[in-house]
Amino acid sequence: MASKFVFGFGGGSAEGGAQDRNLLGGKGANLAEMASIGIDVPPGFTITTEVCTHFTANNAYPDSLKTEVIAALKTVEDIVGTKFGDNHNPLLVSVRSGARVSMPGMMDTVLNLGLNDVTVKGLEENSENPRFAWDSYRRFIQMYSDVVLGVSHYHFEDLIEMHKEDNGHIKDTDLEADDWKKLCGAFLAKVEEELGKPFPQDPYDQLWGAIGAVFASWGVDRAKTYRRLHAIPEGWGTAVNVQAMVFGNMGDSSATGVAFTRNPATGDNEYYGEYLINAQGEDVVAGIRTPQFLTEQARVEAGAELPSMEVTLPEVYKQLTDNFDLLEDHYREMQDIEFTVQKGKLWLLQTRTGKRTAKAALKIAIDMVEEGKITKEEALLRIEAKSLDQLLHPTLDPDAERTVLTRGLPASPGAASGKVYFTADEAERQAATGAEVILVRVETSPEDIHGMHAASDILTSRGGMTSHAAVVARGMGRTCVAGAGELDVNVAEGVMRVAGHEIKAGEIITLDGSSGEVMLGEVAHQEPELAGEFSVLMNWADEVRTMQVRTNAETPKDVRTAREFGAEGIGLCRTEHMFFDAERIVAVRQMILADDVEGREVALAKILPMQRGDFAEIFEIMKGLPVTIRLLDPPLHEFLPREEAEFATVAEGMNVSAAQLKRRANELHESNPMLGHRGCRLGISYPEIYEMQTRAIFEGAIEAQKKTGQAIVPEIMIPLVALKEELDFLKERIDNVAKQVFAEKNSEIEYFVGTMIELPRAAITAGHIAETAEFFSFGTNDLTQTALGVSRDDAQTFLSEYLRLHIIHEDPFVSLDFEGVGELIKMAVERGRKTRPDIKMGICGEHGGDPRSIKFCQGAGLDYVSCSPFRVPIARLAAAQAALENKKNQ
Amino acid sequence: MASKFVFGFGGGSAEGGAQDRNLLGGKGANLAEMASIGIDVPPGFTITTEVCTHFTANNAYPDSLKTEVIAALKTVEDIVGTKFGDNHNPLLVSVRSGARVSMPGMMDTVLNLGLNDVTVKGLEENSENPRFAWDSYRRFIQMYSDVVLGVSHYHFEDLIEMHKEDNGHIKDTDLEADDWKKLCGAFLAKVEEELGKPFPQDPYDQLWGAIGAVFASWGVDRAKTYRRLHAIPEGWGTAVNVQAMVFGNMGDSSATGVAFTRNPATGDNEYYGEYLINAQGEDVVAGIRTPQFLTEQARVEAGAELPSMEVTLPEVYKQLTDNFDLLEDHYREMQDIEFTVQKGKLWLLQTRTGKRTAKAALKIAIDMVEEGKITKEEALLRIEAKSLDQLLHPTLDPDAERTVLTRGLPASPGAASGKVYFTADEAERQAATGAEVILVRVETSPEDIHGMHAASDILTSRGGMTSHAAVVARGMGRTCVAGAGELDVNVAEGVMRVAGHEIKAGEIITLDGSSGEVMLGEVAHQEPELAGEFSVLMNWADEVRTMQVRTNAETPKDVRTAREFGAEGIGLCRTEHMFFDAERIVAVRQMILADDVEGREVALAKILPMQRGDFAEIFEIMKGLPVTIRLLDPPLHEFLPREEAEFATVAEGMNVSAAQLKRRANELHESNPMLGHRGCRLGISYPEIYEMQTRAIFEGAIEAQKKTGQAIVPEIMIPLVALKEELDFLKERIDNVAKQVFAEKNSEIEYFVGTMIELPRAAITAGHIAETAEFFSFGTNDLTQTALGVSRDDAQTFLSEYLRLHIIHEDPFVSLDFEGVGELIKMAVERGRKTRPDIKMGICGEHGGDPRSIKFCQGAGLDYVSCSPFRVPIARLAAAQAALENKKNQ
Repeated sequence: MASKFVFGFGGGSAEGGAQDRNLLGGKGANLAEMASIGIDVPPGFTITTEVCTHFTANNAYPDSLKTEVIAALKTVEDIVGTKFGDNHNPLLVSVRSGARVSMPGMMDTVLNLGLNDVTVKGLEENSENPRFAWDSYRRFIQMYSDVVLGVSHYHFEDLIEMHKEDNGHIKDTDLEADDWKKLCGAFLAKVEEELGKPFPQDPYDQLWGAIGAVFASWGVDRAKTYRRLHAIPEGWGTAVNVQAMVFGNMGDSSATGVAFTRNPATGDNEYYGEYLINAQGEDVVAGIRTPQFLTEQARVEAGAELPSMEVTLPEVYKQLTDNFDLLEDHYREMQDIEFTVQKGKLWLLQTRTGKRTAKAALKIAIDMVEEGKITKEEALLRIEAKSLDQLLHPTLDPDAERTVLTRGLPASPGAASGKVYFTADEAERQAATGAEVILVRVETSPEDIHGMHAASDILTSRGGMTSHAAVVARGMGRTCVAGAGELDVNVAEGVMRVAGHEIKAGEIITLDGSSGEVMLGEVAHQEPELAGEFSVLMNWADEVRTMQVRTNAETPKDVRTAREFGAEGIGLCRTEHMFFDAERIVAVRQMILADDVEGREVALAKILPMQRGDFAEIFEIMKGLPVTIRLLDPPLHEFLPREEAEFATVAEGMNVSAAQLKRRANELHESNPMLGHRGCRLGISYPEIYEMQTRAIFEGAIEAQKKTGQAIVPEIMIPLVALKEELDFLKERIDNVAKQVFAEKNSEIEYFVGTMIELPRAAITAGHIAETAEFFSFGTNDLTQTALGVSRDDAQTFLSEYLRLHIIHEDPFVSLDFEGVGELIKMAVERGRKTRPDIKMGICGEHGGDPRSIKFCQGAGLDYVSCSPFRVPIARLAAAQAALENKKNQ
Repeated sequence: MASKFVFGFGGGSAEGGAQDRNLLGGKGANLAEMASIGIDVPPGFTITTEVCTHFTANNAYPDSLKTEVIAALKTVEDIVGTKFGDNHNPLLVSVRSGARVSMPGMMDTVLNLGLNDVTVKGLEENSENPRFAWDSYRRFIQMYSDVVLGVSHYHFEDLIEMHKEDNGHIKDTDLEADDWKKLCGAFLAKVEEELGKPFPQDPYDQLWGAIGAVFASWGVDRAKTYRRLHAIPEGWGTAVNVQAMVFGNMGDSSATGVAFTRNPATGDNEYYGEYLINAQGEDVVAGIRTPQFLTEQARVEAGAELPSMEVTLPEVYKQLTDNFDLLEDHYREMQDIEFTVQKGKLWLLQTRTGKRTAKAALKIAIDMVEEGKITKEEALLRIEAKSLDQLLHPTLDPDAERTVLTRGLPASPGAASGKVYFTADEAERQAATGAEVILVRVETSPEDIHGMHAASDILTSRGGMTSHAAVVARGMGRTCVAGAGELDVNVAEGVMRVAGHEIKAGEIITLDGSSGEVMLGEVAHQEPELAGEFSVLMNWADEVRTMQVRTNAETPKDVRTAREFGAEGIGLCRTEHMFFDAERIVAVRQMILADDVEGREVALAKILPMQRGDFAEIFEIMKGLPVTIRLLDPPLHEFLPREEAEFATVAEGMNVSAAQLKRRANELHESNPMLGHRGCRLGISYPEIYEMQTRAIFEGAIEAQKKTGQAIVPEIMIPLVALKEELDFLKERIDNVAKQVFAEKNSEIEYFVGTMIELPRAAITAGHIAETAEFFSFGTNDLTQTALGVSRDDAQTFLSEYLRLHIIHEDPFVSLDFEGVGELIKMAVERGRKTRPDIKMGICGEHGGDPRSIKFCQGAGLDYVSCSPFRVPIARLAAAQAALENKKNQ
């Protein structure tokens, strides 16, 4: 055990610092750190955690403690220039607990300790505010009696209520100095009645009582339970912080305020803050009085009348801004500061890293690198990758008024207003007239794709963060609010009802895809500005990251967007989306209705040239960058109508009977389509489909190679493989098509055949599968569905409940389930590499755009992540952060 | 290299035996083995596989080979008493290849070698059958020319066709001796024309030609490919077997026949066989002439007129039966024998283990133990566990006439006839009148349970071996044919159509649940007789097995059946089946429609006493044996109606509006119910459901404990756990209910809380889950569905295709997928035991009754398997076999 138990701080120095967290607790170490760099914090001292341990074991303090405390208090008196218990100008202190980590359950704070029947009058004089003095005293009695003496708080509340009733007052604010004075008397009497002895009037008795209460509170049941649940050792103990009270309400040379060292909204390098003359901290927060600007520039810009602090208290202002510079230099971060001026003397109460907008975070990080305060690597680590979303999409004007109708899941970011329509066809028609359209559906299906393309935004009443609507919207960069369960969508009537409102087709609503809010009418929004800082940051990220970033895209528009955002290839080109085009869907349906191979081949021959065109265009845009094309994945029934009413229309368009169409739809119906006849199972049952697609890929690649002069190396990806034998069967056919096409075109290209790893069995047998597969792409959506046995379309009902009950902490469809799905990925990586050391591996599930998951991918040793175009910048930054953290941990 | 290249056999001895398989090939070693124990096989010799290796390497024979072959042939001549190339009584030989393992692609056989223009006349004299002699010669020329000389067979076929045309013959059988004689001439001329030299007339030239052709055929492409695909080393080589030809068609002292050493239908210890006088082997098989019985007893029993061999050839018969005894003693197995008698001399051509019925297999195994021929362990290993099914269910009379309408999957064994009905309600009504009813559905759902209970048998047009219909039928011991895809079931019209037949409600069909056949009308069937042998075998099995066998059952009837079949506990009691009872379903639906916890609790309170009764009864029957009860598993919508028409009826019965009922059904609708809101997810969303069930279990157990005086230790099983946290949440609630009930009843019982391991994530995190779970039960149905990503309800479309294409070799829902699902099980066992070494583990999926899967469970170290009642005996035997094999491998 150390020989020193009390560490002082204040007056320009401290006996400890940030490094002494274990001994001084978090709060004590922070205060010491500020003091040690010359910041004027209200002086005080910390009784170490070792005393707590000693006290817990022996129910007594170390011998020297009393002496040390009294000496430390003396130092505080000297710095402040008042005396503890002085009748005219008493030193008041706060007593707080402070463990290594913040810990609810323990005694928190006693304020204004040192007040008694005599010193309260000193405070009255000094503050020239009798109401404040007596109110402070009664608060002290209440707090101290409750937490130190164990007199239940309801006694005091009863007394206040009776007093108000007797005197016709309604609110506490109605009470004046005399009222509080009377109540102080009543409180003291009540304490004596309850305890059989008077409330301690000696400030030293008060102090030791509070110190003992803090240490004792370490051992109460609530604190013990908390420690058990959070694995905090009993032996850590808590420190006690005793600190001088300062007051900003002691006249016109007193003030209180909050400030940021830079503008937290824009990131501009300018002091930013507000203050109030003759006020306490809570007055600033409460918003009863209008705060004044700190700087003259801000005041002028805002056209405010009340003078700035720069003008009213120029010397204090100078001191304050010197402190700002000191703190920012010391912590190398923008700081959020609380301060109080007591009779012209500045005290800093607290400093911490300041919260900021995404835009500000970006600017501050870049500026600080330029100012030489931090390195590029630090700048990269300081920006939350997810927050970049805010920079890439329009956002609602934060000051605009709004009527929130309901809230769904923030499925795809952005903000936009538009007319609601309830069918894809109507949405498309209205969009064609130039209207901004919001497509509202219970849930969307691949059939709605054309409507989703046409619409600006999408709103659904069912489905989660990875529902069809959400995935497609993110892919297209459309705003989407999904699973707004309170919404009652009536397609037949053309109306949606929510929160007592009835919104008809053609009426306007606004969606906020970042908060999930659905609002009535039009709400003003701001367009994103991608300042130069954005590309500077992206370049820095690219310098350090080791994983490639690809995109999940298939339309030329999305592919171009992704390229602009820096995608280095396509990790997932979903060919089924290409089948829903109005021209093609008829041929696709003919294929599905065909009775035999010949019939299917006739229909497929119609689709071939269009698919070839799709692929050629994508290859051309990507100019030789890798393109992974997934062959047809969804079950065939997704291409047939679902609604009773549609059968007749579709049948007529196809020149078949509605009955025939419906019979086929019934034949294809599945109980669990997610686990049904899809993916490579289709490719095996109907080899001609994959053969057509493969031919389109090879022909398109040869065409693009000629046009661009770049070597095109398509990566053909087989979905839903569970067995190596499935892949063998299909690879043989793909190789045969390649031979045929190369012979016909008299031109050969390189190509790879690989597989999705999206079923647990595929992950487990990856060693086997890698004998055939030339690359793996982890389809973490389906892998999550199957590993956890959860349908993402149906999960919202219970996953939200799970989150509420803390059974899970993250939606596994948003952020990878490391323990389950993650282990399957690691297993597959290890086993796959053992068989084929140079096998390329990436992730193309929704998780490819989630920073936490990207970090996992780095650790698992993947070569790339692939995500929707608008997430590419996020992924680039997250990959850089993952690489930096990985390096740090090595 | 050895110094001996030719090994002779025959004449009561042999130079090799069964142990010389590598040197002599499979065929050569078998012939040597028979000869060495004194069986008269047609004599011959084997040229070793070493010669093949030498020949392949050097394209020449070892120096001493010629001398050895000639010496061996001399020995054959001596034994047979004829000479190779003799003009009057020529020795004819066959030349065959024979590798270690049977291998297609190589030269197979040349028969009748030694015939030429001269010796054919000797055969003509000797056989007194000129047509046979010339037919044999022309066949020899054809075969030899094709496989040895490389003259294509179509030349000869053309000549035969031309000859028939010229002579007005239609079939080959129309040709007489002279025709064949003329054709022999034409054949020889054609060979000379093709080769530019004559067909070899010297028998020795013929012999060396054939030997060389066999060795050369080892190196042809087809054989090489086969070896590559089956991992057969090139270096093995093939042997050549040269063996004397014998003929059963040389007059009335010649004969040919097939025989079994015991009755293969009944297993009775009596000789059993058929023969034909003056005939060749193919005549017996062809069925042109009616074969005669071997034994007099069989002839008399059958009332046949043609005399038995015992009477016609008594001496040969005596020799033959001596050989039977010799062979059975030697091979310690019932033998299936081919023999030929040539002019009074008996030759055995082949012996092998005889195929038999399940009944015979059982009797023979038990008899052989009693006769001291084999051990109990051998007896256990000799009976195919699956075949016991045949003994436990009625079977169709094999001789009964039948009109097969179509064929589905043999989903649940047995045979029965009944009137078809198309709804569960109608099936129940008709069964109540005493009719035998077959319930015919497209597929069944839990709502059909009452109809399935009432019906004798079940037929569906959709679904696989583990569809709802199949699983429930097996559980109830009902015959079931599932997934008969050609069947067009029209419930509305009350008719099913198949193969041009239209079968209306009330008409009779017959199902064979062991073959999957659906037959028109009534087909006679036989009731099972469980002879004493059955229980003898079961007792032996119980002595050696180390895994327990439990049952999956919940109705008192099934529980009793399972106990009679020897179940040692209940491994899976599915509580949802108990909810469909007419009395209860209304309360269940009220619970589902309730808006809040209170409403649900009111409804659950109605179900509580019934559930308590269910459990008490099961505990009483099981008298203290372990009972694992799974809490509610299926999604709630399974309890609501599906068909439009039913809503009104059900709503009326419940006193709610059809609209309300339908709205709730729509709310509960799921895209993939298999991965939806079910299992423990329900238990977490609606804790009151599991609390009611848990209360019923504890109250029922205390009640049963009082009645039986046995300690009842219920095992409460939580379904569909993916996360330890789910189990924690529910276990806490179960423990609370236990405390309450124990306090109320003033009685405590022991109980266990465990979990299904039926999701990949649960298997992966089993170490974690075992911290809470006190037992694991592998739900391999769902584990297979999720690991492979295959819905068992939808899989039939592609799994049958996969089987056809050899992408899989077993339906993974019938027999465990070792590589994928099996690895998950092993992982869970290992991780679970690491955390909790004494954790009890078993399997309760359908695989628990599959012998191959049971063997896996033994290897994985499970404590028990659990299966449907009628599979309990199969599981007992399979578990015994697994234990024996496991011991052998240690």
